[in-house]
This record gives sequence, C-alpha cells and structure tokens, in this order.
Amino acid sequence: MMKVALLGAGRIGQVHANSIAANEGSRLVAVADAFPEAAEKLAAQVGVDVKSVDDILADKSIGAVLIATSTDTHSELIERATAAGKAVLCEKPVDLSLERALTTFRTAESNGQPVMIGFNRRFDPQFAALKAAFDAGEIGRGELLSITSFDPAPPPVSYIKVSGGLFRDMMIHDFDMACWIFGGPPARVTAIGSAIVDPAIGATGDVDTAAVTLQWDDGRIAVIRNSRRAGYGYDQRIELLGSEGLLSANNVLENTVEKITTAGASAAKPVYFFLERYMRAYEIEWNAFVEALKAGARMPVTLAEGVAALACAEAATRSAKSGEAVAITADMLVG
Amino acid sequence: MMKVALLGAGRIGQVHANSIAANEGSRLVAVADAFPEAAEKLAAQVGVDVKSVDDILADKSIGAVLIATSTDTHSELIERATAAGKAVLCEKPVDLSLERALTTFRTAESNGQPVMIGFNRRFDPQFAALKAAFDAGEIGRGELLSITSFDPAPPPVSYIKVSGGLFRDMMIHDFDMACWIFGGPPARVTAIGSAIVDPAIGATGDVDTAAVTLQWDDGRIAVIRNSRRAGYGYDQRIELLGSEGLLSANNVLENTVEKITTAGASAAKPVYFFLERYMRAYEIEWNAFVEALKAGARMPVTLAEGVAALACAEAATRSAKSGEAVAITADMLVG
Amino acid sequence: MMKVALLGAGRIGQVHANSIAANEGSRLVAVADAFPEAAEKLAAQVGVDVKSVDDILADKSIGAVLIATSTDTHSELIERATAAGKAVLCEKPVDLSLERALTTFRTAESNGQPVMIGFNRRFDPQFAALKAAFDAGEIGRGELLSITSFDPAPPPVSYIKVSGGLFRDMMIHDFDMACWIFGGPPARVTAIGSAIVDPAIGATGDVDTAAVTLQWDDGRIAVIRNSRRAGYGYDQRIELLGSEGLLSANNVLENTVEKITTAGASAAKPVYFFLERYMRAYEIEWNAFVEALKAGARMPVTLAEGVAALACAEAATRSAKSGEAVAITADMLVG
Amino acid sequence: MMKVALLGAGRIGQVHANSIAANEGSRLVAVADAFPEAAEKLAAQVGVDVKSVDDILADKSIGAVLIATSTDTHSELIERATAAGKAVLCEKPVDLSLERALTTFRTAESNGQPVMIGFNRRFDPQFAALKAAFDAGEIGRGELLSITSFDPAPPPVSYIKVSGGLFRDMMIHDFDMACWIFGGPPARVTAIGSAIVDPAIGATGDVDTAAVTLQWDDGRIAVIRNSRRAGYGYDQRIELLGSEGLLSANNVLENTVEKITTAGASAAKPVYFFLERYMRAYEIEWNAFVEALKAGARMPVTLAEGVAALACAEAATRSAKSGEAVAITADMLVG
Repeated sequence: MMKVALLGAGRIGQVHANSIAANEGSRLVAVADAFPEAAEKLAAQVGVDVKSVDDILADKSIGAVLIATSTDTHSELIERATAAGKAVLCEKPVDLSLERALTTFRTAESNGQPVMIGFNRRFDPQFAALKAAFDAGEIGRGELLSITSFDPAPPPVSYIKVSGGLFRDMMIHDFDMACWIFGGPPARVTAIGSAIVDPAIGATGDVDTAAVTLQWDDGRIAVIRNSRRAGYGYDQRIELLGSEGLLSANNVLENTVEKITTAGASAAKPVYFFLERYMRAYEIEWNAFVEALKAGARMPVTLAEGVAALACAEAATRSAKSGEAVAITADMLVG
Repeated sequence: MMKVALLGAGRIGQVHANSIAANEGSRLVAVADAFPEAAEKLAAQVGVDVKSVDDILADKSIGAVLIATSTDTHSELIERATAAGKAVLCEKPVDLSLERALTTFRTAESNGQPVMIGFNRRFDPQFAALKAAFDAGEIGRGELLSITSFDPAPPPVSYIKVSGGLFRDMMIHDFDMACWIFGGPPARVTAIGSAIVDPAIGATGDVDTAAVTLQWDDGRIAVIRNSRRAGYGYDQRIELLGSEGLLSANNVLENTVEKITTAGASAAKPVYFFLERYMRAYEIEWNAFVEALKAGARMPVTLAEGVAALACAEAATRSAKSGEAVAITADMLVG
Repeated sequence: MMKVALLGAGRIGQVHANSIAANEGSRLVAVADAFPEAAEKLAAQVGVDVKSVDDILADKSIGAVLIATSTDTHSELIERATAAGKAVLCEKPVDLSLERALTTFRTAESNGQPVMIGFNRRFDPQFAALKAAFDAGEIGRGELLSITSFDPAPPPVSYIKVSGGLFRDMMIHDFDMACWIFGGPPARVTAIGSAIVDPAIGATGDVDTAAVTLQWDDGRIAVIRNSRRAGYGYDQRIELLGSEGLLSANNVLENTVEKITTAGASAAKPVYFFLERYMRAYEIEWNAFVEALKAGARMPVTLAEGVAALACAEAATRSAKSGEAVAITADMLVG
Repeated sequence: MMKVALLGAGRIGQVHANSIAANEGSRLVAVADAFPEAAEKLAAQVGVDVKSVDDILADKSIGAVLIATSTDTHSELIERATAAGKAVLCEKPVDLSLERALTTFRTAESNGQPVMIGFNRRFDPQFAALKAAFDAGEIGRGELLSITSFDPAPPPVSYIKVSGGLFRDMMIHDFDMACWIFGGPPARVTAIGSAIVDPAIGATGDVDTAAVTLQWDDGRIAVIRNSRRAGYGYDQRIELLGSEGLLSANNVLENTVEKITTAGASAAKPVYFFLERYMRAYEIEWNAFVEALKAGARMPVTLAEGVAALACAEAATRSAKSGEAVAITADMLVG
C-alpha cells in the first residue's frame, strides 16, 4: 500500500483524490493547497490531514505525490519532489516555458525518480480502443491523423491571460495524443488561429479557434482543430486514416434515446464537460501510475513526452505568429 | 442515516451492497445469507457483521431490508420484514405464484410498511430518458410499444428448471416496463414461445424464444420479444410509436470506435451483460428508494406493480400453452 | 425485345411504365384503363396507344401484361391473360378472397403461363442485402424475425372500406417478406389490432394498428408490426436474430446531414413515401421478371407465394377477431 | 428546347449526355471528341451526330456547349465558344495556369456569354442540405469548416504527371466548396503535403496526402484534408462549426444493413466512387444550368468562382513548397 500526498485541492485535485481512494494499492494520507480552506475542505471529505508541502516532502513514509496545483508551480514541485525521493504524477503541462521544462527534465532525471505527466486522454476508453486497434495493425500504416477538440465554452478571460495561450493550455492535450499515436514528435508544425468566438480573448493576444498541421519526416500528417466554444458540449474525436482503412473514436453521448417526428430525427448531445467524459480516464490513469511503480516499469506518460508536447505547443505558437512552418529541432526535445 | 440489512449475499446482493454504501443516507449494518460462506465473504468486504434473518428483523435500529435472496423466499421475507416494521426493497419477481403474491400484498399492506420491487430497468438512464420524453408529450399519445430483450446466453438448465419459466423469470422485467410506460396493466395478452436455442430448455417444458402482444382497453398495443441467446451481448431496446412520432432507446455500446476498411464498416457491440448495462440503474434505484422513504412518498415501484407484472407473466404462460388470448382480470390484480 | 401491355394507368401503373421503358429487353406497346382519361394521359406520356383489354389479349405480338388495376380485377385478369398466352406480372394482392386466389392459381397453372406477383419489397436493395447476408449464413440459423412497416398517413376511409382490411391490404407485404426470408409459410398466426389512429377506420370494422406473430413448425418466430400512421415518413425495417447474430435493414433517410446544438443532435427523417423508398425496387422487380422469362426460369415471386401471403392475411384477420391462434392448413395453400 | 453540343465523349462526357437527355428543356444534338472512336461510340448510344468543334461552333441553332474535354483545352474552348455566342458549362478546373484562367475570364466576359464551371459537389443533395441549413442560420455564424475528401485509389502515375498536382486537380473541388460555403475566397492559405501512399507519385514531384488551412480576414478558418487512397471507398464529408452548433454532411453508404455478432457490429461502406456518389449531383447541376439560362439569372457557379478556386490551389501549391502561408491577393482574383 503506497502512501500518497495530493498537492492541489481544486476541482481536478478532488477527482484525483477519488481515484487514489479507489485504488487498492494506494492510500491518500495528506493534502496541501496554497488556499488553506480548499485543503481543509477536501481533507475533511476524504478523512486525511492537511499538511504543508515541506512536511509532505520531508515525510519518508510518503512514496508518491500527485501534483495538481497551478501550472506555474509544476516545474519546481517536480524538482523538489523527486529530490525528496518521491515518485510523481504531475498534471499537464510541465510548464509554460519549454526551456524551464527541459531544465526540470534534467533535474528529475538526475534525481532518479519516476515522473508521469497527466495526459488523461490516453486513458480514455474510446481513444485507448482506437490506439489498440491501430497498434494491432487493423488499418495498416498510419498516414493522416485528425484530432477534434472543442470545449463547450471558453474559460474566463482572467484565466486565458495566465494560461500560456490556446496552444500550450488546450491543444497541449492534442499534441500529446498525436505524438502518442504516431510514436514520437513531428518534424514540423504549421498553425493558424483566430479570436472569432470572443474578441476579449483576442485582446489578450490569444486565439480561441485554431487549426494546426503536423508533419513527420516520413510524410505522416496530423491535423488538430481546436475551438474554445462548441456550445453543445465537449466535442472530442480522433480519426486516423491508414494504408488499409480508417479508425475513428467518436463522442460519448448523454444517452442512447432517439426521436423521429415530422420535424426530423433527434438524439442526445455529447456529454457536456471533461469531467463527464474523462472521469473514467482519470481513474485508469492513476491505476496505470500505481501499476507501473509497482512493476518498476516505464511511466505510461513520461516527462520527456510532456516536454515533447510542449515543444509542439511552442512551435505552433510561433508558427501562428510568423505564418511559417516551424521545425521541431533536437534542442527543443529531450536528448 | 438509515440502517440497512441485506438479505442475500450473491452476485446481485453484492451490487446492492455497493449502492447502499454509496448513498449518504443509508448505511449497511448486516448481511444474511443461507450460505454462511457467502455472507461472511461479502460482510468482510464491506466491513459489517453477518447476522441471522431473525436477529436482523428483531433489531429495532434497522430501518430497512433489501431482499436479494432466491425467489422462493421473497414472499415470506416481505411479509416477515414488514411485520417487523421494516421498509423493504425486494428483488423481482414477488413470487412465482400469482396467488401467493396477492396474499403477500395484502399482508404487507396490513403491516403498513412501504415495499418497493426492484425493477431496476425503470432506473436505466436510457429508458428513463425515453419515459421522460414520452411523459413530456414529445410524441403525443402512445400507440404501439416494442420491447426487445435478449440475453447474451441462456442460464444453466438447472436454473431454468426452478425459474418459473421465461415469462415469469425473464420477461417479467418487460411486462413491468410496458405497464410502467403505459401507466397500468393491459387488458389481454397473447403469447407464443419456442425452444429453438436449446432443446434441453424445451425438455424442461420452458421456451427460450418468445413473442408476446399486450393490448389495453383503449387499443394501445405492446409487443415484447425475448431470446435467451443473442450471443453478441445484452440487447435491451425500447421503441414507442406515438401519435406524433417515434421514440427509441438503443443499446449501450462497449465503446465509440468505428472502423472502415474494404471489408466494410465496423463498430463495438452492446455491452455484454446486465451488470455492465444496469450497474448505474441499480444505484439510482437504491437512491430512489431512500429518497422516497425520507420524503414519505409513494414507492417508485410498488408491490402492487410487482403483482401486475406477475399477472402478465401468468397470462402469457397460459396463452403460450392454449393459443388463446388471456384476459387480465380484476382478480389477478390488486384491488 | 418483348412487347408488353400495361393494364392500369394509375399511380403505380406509371411507375411500372418507366421500368418497362428503362429495360432494354422490354417495350411498352399499349395501355388500358377503365378510365379512358387515365389511359390516354399515360399513353401520351410514354408514346404508345390506348387499347382495350380485349384487344391487348387478342394481340399475339404482345408477350406479357403487367396488371396494375384495382385489386378486385386481378384474379380475372390473371386468368384471362394466361389463357391468352401472356406472361403476367400482377400487383399484390392476388385477390381479397383466398378461395378465389386458389382458383386463379389452378387456372393459371393449367394455362401454363408464368405469373409473377409484384411483391416489390423483395427487390429493395436494403432488404435484398439482408436476405443475401442471411442466406450466406452470416448469422447462422434464423430464429426471431421482426418486421416494422408503418405508413406515413392512413389512406382515405373510402379506400379502407374496399381494401379488404389492414391484414390483406397492408400487412400482405410483410407476410410475404416473412415467408420469403424463412423459406415458406408459417404454421400458425396470432393477431391483435386496434383502431387507435382514427376511429373512422374502426367504424368500418378495420384496424389501423396491429401486431401479429407467426410461428413455424420448427419453432422459428416472426413478429410484424403495422401502423397506418407514423407521421414522420415511411418506416420500413427488418430485423433478424439468428443463432450467431443479428441482421437489421434500416430506413433510407432523406439525406446524411446531422446537426448538433444545445438543443441536441438532429438528423434527417426516413423518406416520406413508398415511391421514394421503393422506386429502385420496382425497377429491379421488372428487370427480374424480364430476366426470368428470358431464361425460362422460375418466377422470382410465384403465384403460389402470392397465395401463401394471402393465407397469412386470412389467418390474421380471423385471429384478430377470435383471439385465438389460427393454423395455416394445407387447404389454405397451393398443393 | 435548347440545343446542346457536348465536347468530350469520355467517362464524364457520358454522364453529362444522360443529364442533358433527362432534362426536358435541353436536347443533345452533337458530340465532338479528339478521339473519333470515342465520339462515334457515344453519339451512337444517344442517337446524335458526331461533329467537329468548328462545325458545332458555327451552328447557330446550338445554344450551349458542355465542355468535358481534357483540362488543357478548357480555356481555349471557353473563349471560342463564348465568342461564337454559346452559353458554356465547362468541367473544372478552368485551367492549370491561374494566369491563363484570368485571361479566359476577361475574354469570356467581353464576349458577353454566360459561363458556368462544373463544380458538381455544390449540387450533391447532402452538401446542398448542409449549405441550406447553414444559410438558414441554424448554427449561427460560421467559424471552423472541415472538408474531408479521400479518393478510393490513386489514378495512374501517367495521369498524375499531367494533372497539375493534387492541389489543382483534386483539392480544387474542396477549395470551391470552402469558398462557396463561406461566401468568397480566403485571405491566406497554408499547405503541407506528402507522398506517403505511393513513392512513384512523389517521384513526379506531386503529393498524395495533404492538409491545407484557409483563413479569412474576419478570422474564419477552413481545414481541407485530401488523400488519394482511402481504399474503402469515396470518403466525402463536410463539417461546419458555427457560433451555435455543428453541421455535418456524412457519407452515402452502399446500403442500410447492419450486423451484430460476437465479432462486433458491422455496416456498409461508403459508395465506392464519384459516379455513384455524385450521379445525382451531375443531373441537378445540368438542370441548374438550364434553369439559370432560361431565367437569365446568374450562373450557379461562375467563371470568377472557378478562378478563385484555382487561386487557392495556386497558393496551396506554393505554400506546400515554401512552408510559408501564402496570401490570396487581388491580382489572383477577378476584379
């Protein structure tokens, strides 16, 4: 039974707390949060103590920390936690700065502790089934990948301002999916973006609608489409054309009821938000982390992979500004 | 916080134990089972004591019992538990004998305790959404209802022999759905059945494939189709034609992945068994029971409704034998 | 090039005229209709002469007649045309009277001319694909067949009065589909029907909503559901459960466009009427007739099969009245 | 009744010949082709004369010509035909050279004859329904358009060599769809392409797989994906995210039959080739041309729109080479 501390008691921290509790191999023993009230509330719910980060890192009985704090603290906490001998599962992204993330990687590596980045979508049963079918050769060699990722509604502009921009904050998930499915980062990235949903988002210098193309050296192509506002729900689809066919992972709908009247046929919408769509993915993610630690196996999502997704985001951000394709060079990646 | 005892620690008892634990208004405090080992195993899992039925009924602190024992004990346990002042949620069917069930109804009524029958499908989110849309008038007046209910594989012949037959054991669920959707029992029933899946089932005098039609006095019609063996999974669909359109509740699939190759398009099957399809329904069912008790409201599924479903099963059994439509008469129902 | 005369210049006659013209092996040379205006109009459209039935039957150069007149003339015209040495394609049903149809069968047989009955649905590409997959063994042995057939709106009550009733007029198609798919007529039939769509239909003694079950001696079962009014279009589906899986032929939709908004997902309705759904089927039907004649092969739908469908309709009509299962006996079928 | 001559008797010329024949307002009177045998064969089929282009253009009774010759002759034939006072429907693209197409536009304009370019997909009932719903405001303002267009199999390399490249030959259709749906050409284009399906295509300097993004000045974005080889059929889909929802036009399938077995659920593939998918579109296209001529209305697809699609193709070709976004400037378009 591994003892675990949770850093960050916000919405996503609560989700993780449940996953930790549900896994028979892990036990949540402490919660920390910069806001004492949030920490107290969650700690009370799950019946554990609130502790400071320092105390948690000093506690030798704690084997792992789950970092679900704000993005600007991820790098430092990964470095400190691995220095303290803890295994780490850290929410995405590693950092908003690619350079900083690369430093963190080197530090964590020299600390010799396993670090997993929380790209939860890899554990979504729909996407995992697509990946499994592809890896089993069901559609031959991959050629053209398409990822659709639309949020139901944009976050507050105050959040947008500190988010690092759509490519680092939102599309980072899709970059990871593309790298995961195609087995490594692309050679070059082109990006266009618009602030068409809300001019206030444009006023911050960010975009709310974007299309990105990735190209691998062997010619494989991926297309990612993002919108901050689909309105009808959380639109999350992946489609992969291979040399022998097409695979697609479609949305999860609210229910299976259909209606036909003179007005036409109608059916349920996709589930509305990421907690509904990905609740099960978060649980499987945690189980995979625990399992890998127990087995001494490679992390299911490595810190190096977290850096690669950030490199794509960095390249896309630059391409959207310059109008030029941006190469993913060796210095943007982990050796 | 209502204290609850669970009578019956088999497969379905375990499902209910989880639902009781997940509801903040109820707490499981005791488990009983005719097989001490089963009781011990479940009790250990959930951290409660094994007790005898006698001790449970004598314990004044226990407010409700959930009866998940074998069918032949339902009637007696309902009678005893209500006599002991407990609220009851009892698995379907009330009894294999309609006469016995009617007696139980009268006894429970005089005991003055609420009794709910566990027709879990009413709480399935798909069927509940269909019912809600229908009740909201989205397709006008109901005219022709169709219920498809195919099991993935037949149970052992040893079970078939004591099951009361397909109409009482399996189609009982569908009779309840029809009565629930159309707001009361039908006026007459016709049934045909065949043992075409497995001659060994036929040898017991039972059928494995059946089609039943129900007709209400105002002309509404329902058609129920059952098969003990669909092979591909648990096929559970409802379709309702109204004066202004059609509603259908379709299967829940294993995932949303599709594939297209030169061999055609393919997709996932329906989930394989009732625990996958109805796990959530069982949880909602228990919550509805607790909620109704707290509010002093009418049970979400009454014992009288349990009797009505059994009356349909009785009529269908007779019709399948005689080849004649069988009327549901007043003496087959609760006053 | 076979010369063909068309008897009956109504709506369905016009459809057949187009099919005859489109087939390179057949040429329409004459049109007859009890209403001279109808005959003149169609004849002008397709550039042929109006002739009397007598003249057509006397014309030795005419090899085949297509009978698309009112039902009450079918039997006599089949008899006369085959006596005159013509091959015949006659619209369904053979007659409203089973006895009369049996006589017609015997007469046509002794006349030695091929007669095909126009059960167009066998030639619908959807249903034909289902049948082909079934015959290829893709779902093993057939066990439970379901046929859904809803019209968009009821015909005028004046038509209902002379129609022979829903079972003979409308469900006759579905009886033929069931016999076709299962390779022969059932052993017994149960039927219930209601006039719930329109009391005026009930006042004529007919029903507008019905459910029928058919059972074969080896246990196979078919369920047919009919409604005179679906409202949203022409709902035509077949579903077949076999020992190794399920086949279903679904509706043809108006288009493939889908929409998702906060109000839900929506899509196109089924095409509205039989001419849209079955236009291609009528054309394939005629081609199959011409092909069979050319090859001297068995008619794709025999007169005996037309009689069998009528026997089912007769049995269903009686069962709906008596509430008893009605056997299909040898005297109701062609030896 | 307008007399029409068909220039070009190849595969697509034959399709057009049928459409001309089926329209009551037009009559095919002559066929020309550089290969006399092709012209003779088609002329015999439809019962008209073979004539030279010179004779056709000199014939004052001929009101319109349909140009379905090889692409390198389009510009000259448009110029000559309009000079001869004929209305023109010309197959896409106008020319492989944008400069040449601009010259042709100016010539045709000064000749004062109506010219329509044969972008048949605008007339596909699926895409037309999507456009109609969008224009009716059903999903609000358009934001992000996605066009998927995969051929079942690549053409011969000999064709690729003279095709002008994927962007001008294949994606030209999709550029027109994007401009049509969004009401005008985009401001800039980025493109990437790979020869991943067949190295022999790469050896010609062309690509077989490509992703292009278009951006309008107000921020709207379109993404186009092309592959020369889907294998399973002709994959033709459009999806449009608007401020209030999503519209999608999906593939047309071979039939509506589905199967579920233990191996999963399966269904029909998309129809295999453009003639199956777009046969009806070609017919509607011709009818729209005849209708517009009769009404003296604007051509349903103007020559200026044909030039705009070519401008997009030109920009995409350049962007795929340079890795930079290419602006669509005023000099690339018709005043």
